[in-house]
Parts: sequence; C-alpha cells; structure tokens
Amino acid sequence: MPIKKVNLSEKLSLFADHWSPKIVGELNGQMVKLAKLKGEFVMHHHEQEDELFLVISGVLYIEMEDQTLELHPGEFVIIPKGTPHRPDAPEEVSVMLFEPATTLNTGDADSDLKVEKLQKI
Amino acid sequence: MPIKKVNLSEKLSLFADHWSPKIVGELNGQMVKLAKLKGEFVMHHHEQEDELFLVISGVLYIEMEDQTLELHPGEFVIIPKGTPHRPDAPEEVSVMLFEPATTLNTGDADSDLKVEKLQKI
Repeated sequence: MPIKKVNLSEKLSLFADHWSPKIVGELNGQMVKLAKLKGEFVMHHHEQEDELFLVISGVLYIEMEDQTLELHPGEFVIIPKGTPHRPDAPEEVSVMLFEPATTLNTGDADSDLKVEKLQKI
Repeated sequence: MPIKKVNLSEKLSLFADHWSPKIVGELNGQMVKLAKLKGEFVMHHHEQEDELFLVISGVLYIEMEDQTLELHPGEFVIIPKGTPHRPDAPEEVSVMLFEPATTLNTGDADSDLKVEKLQKI
C-alpha cells in the first residue's frame, strides 16, 4: 500500500462530535489523533502515559492543580503522566493529540465522556 | 518545575541552520523536534523507527522509490521504518518531527549532514 500524506483540515472536516478522538496515524506504538473539543472535560490523569496537545484552531485552556495554561493555534503542551488536568474549551477547539495507543481519553476518571473504541479516519 | 507550553513560531525563530533538528519536547520515549530544511537531503532509511514529518511552513517533497509526496503546511506523513526516503526543499521549509529519541537524521546514510548531538531549545 502506498504511503499517503494526511491533511489535517481534510480529516477534521470528516467529523463533528466533541471529546471523541479519531486516529489519523500510528508510529512507534504511538497514535496521532485528532479531536474537536467544546465545553468542560473532566479532571483526570493518565497513570502511565504522557500526552501531547497541539492546538490547530480555537483556544484551549488546560487547568492543572497549580496553573491554567492557555493554548492558541500553533502551540502545544506535554502533560506528563500522573498529572491531573482538565481541558476546557469555551468555544470549539481542534487539537492534534499524540499519545500511546492504549491511552483512554478520560484517564483514571469515571465519566460518561469515556470513549473506549476509537475510530480510524 | 511548572509545565510550560511551547509556541512553534517562537521556537522556530531561535535558529536558522538547515537540516539540524532541535528538540522541543519529549514524551513516552519519543522526541518532538523542529527543523528548517532547504535543498536536497540524502536518500536514507531508519532501520527501527517510523518518522513523522508535519509541515509548518513551505512545501516539502519527500521522494521515495515509487512516488514523491508533496506536503503543504498542515499536512503530515509517516514514513515507516525501513522505507528509503529523501526530503527535498527547493525553498525553505519548517517541519515538526516526531520520532524516537534515538533517531539519527541521516538514518543509515553516511553523510556530512549527520547530526549526532541534538540541541534542546
């Protein structure tokens, strides 16, 4: 199968649901995911996995215990494993995520927002 | 140490050299790197590592045995391990790379373009 490039805008146009990451690539056991976020997520952490959020559009707030980061397009943050964080998107945000295949969106939190089986697009 | 966000443009303004990736983040044993590319690189492959190129500015061509991909800003490609590829940037290109800490820019190729010790910025 030929190697194909991935256009982020094109992939983002394929879905509209919030808080439901889609897989758009895989390398070295890590997944590249795209997600649209709107509203407040739950505070959670990932026991074993660091997580990268790269903002593509919109403004994403990530609340942690000691600070809240404000991320604009072209900015990313790496949340180290074990760090409680709560993404908050007052307006819709598109993000690229980079994390292991096994990472659950809600981490340790028991929440209706949990998505266990991610779609590949 | 507080968790900090990374602004891609800001980091890109800190260096001007070509074909010399800088480390801007690390997660799960993988590195996030930024590089500026101009001109033709050497054909090479990485024995054990898949490599992601996300174009931030400019137009990047990646020549492979059976095709040449043309990548614009907001587009990425994952080059699977073992795949010979040659990046080519007729005009300057800025890219974000995602690959294991151990990946050497020139892969298996013996080239003056090899950078063994990457700078963190």
